[in-house]
Amino acid sequence: MIDRRNPRIPTVDVDSQFLDRWSPRAFDPTPLTDDQLAALFEAARWAPSCYNDQPWLFLYAVTPEDRARFAKALVPANQVWAPHAPLLLFVLCRRRFRHNNQENRHARFDAGAAWMALALQARKLGLHAHAMAGFSRQKAYEILAVPPEDYDIMAAVAVGRRGDAQMLPEDVAAREQPSDRKPLSEVARQGQF
Amino acid sequence: MIDRRNPRIPTVDVDSQFLDRWSPRAFDPTPLTDDQLAALFEAARWAPSCYNDQPWLFLYAVTPEDRARFAKALVPANQVWAPHAPLLLFVLCRRRFRHNNQENRHARFDAGAAWMALALQARKLGLHAHAMAGFSRQKAYEILAVPPEDYDIMAAVAVGRRGDAQMLPEDVAAREQPSDRKPLSEVARQGQF
Repeated sequence: MIDRRNPRIPTVDVDSQFLDRWSPRAFDPTPLTDDQLAALFEAARWAPSCYNDQPWLFLYAVTPEDRARFAKALVPANQVWAPHAPLLLFVLCRRRFRHNNQENRHARFDAGAAWMALALQARKLGLHAHAMAGFSRQKAYEILAVPPEDYDIMAAVAVGRRGDAQMLPEDVAAREQPSDRKPLSEVARQGQF
Repeated sequence: MIDRRNPRIPTVDVDSQFLDRWSPRAFDPTPLTDDQLAALFEAARWAPSCYNDQPWLFLYAVTPEDRARFAKALVPANQVWAPHAPLLLFVLCRRRFRHNNQENRHARFDAGAAWMALALQARKLGLHAHAMAGFSRQKAYEILAVPPEDYDIMAAVAVGRRGDAQMLPEDVAAREQPSDRKPLSEVARQGQF
């Protein structure tokens, strides 16, 4: 499971899945099986949420036609690589709670938790998931026929097996490795801000 | 690892960690070790984020004094059980990107991903993490000395080993089991909204 090219060094002993999850751009176009596809959403389904509202919604494309249509919402830099992935999806969250129709200020936070579950389940299946903020929200709303007053489109995601980085343009291939993080000391503080 | 009292039934085969993560209210007050504490934040540290901005920040309390102080921000229903947990923390996210000081509309989403990593790492350590929206934001800003213009306080979290549900008030104890979810068919849709 561990990618020996992964340069990440943990500060303390931690489950390897967190180091092993990263966001490649070279994807192998081999289609996912129906069970793989369902398992990704199943992992997300069990995420925690405020009032158990489960505000997340995943809109996905697996056919060549749907993937090409979804890809039109991506910025050019992502159109270079993301359409090769066998699964493209958008992560949405519902703006208001179902039980009282009040604004849900936790919707994005909860959708982020569901996205993380999906990304970790992808690794359990030998896949990678790469989330993108680089897309036109206006185009995504149009292409996906999403009512903007009800749902917020938070991220686009490409999922698949890793492909050969040589398929990428040179400048993109040069970035094809796990990114580093701020030191642990900057992530948590004791007692107060 | 699997809790036999867990009534959750997956729709498809999925990694058991997602079913095994839930939010109990009965916590054992035994302190966490320093390595356990660090591992929770280490897992969160490696979460993905827009521009790798890592907008999350965890403010935590482990001493009796700090835990009592943090607990004052919780709503009464959470004050009943959460202060027994050996670790209380708040999840914050930075409102603006570090690289250009522009609004980061993905900050909550990314903080949610980091929170999910922490929650899953908790289970790997034999612990549970229970996130709460039930707290006074105003009190939390004051108690934690957080600048509201820079950081959004998204959630309070109690972490520890499970305790005996008999320590809980009867009405709280009655809810002490994993919650269910919407069907998988409502989580993901193919092609468009």
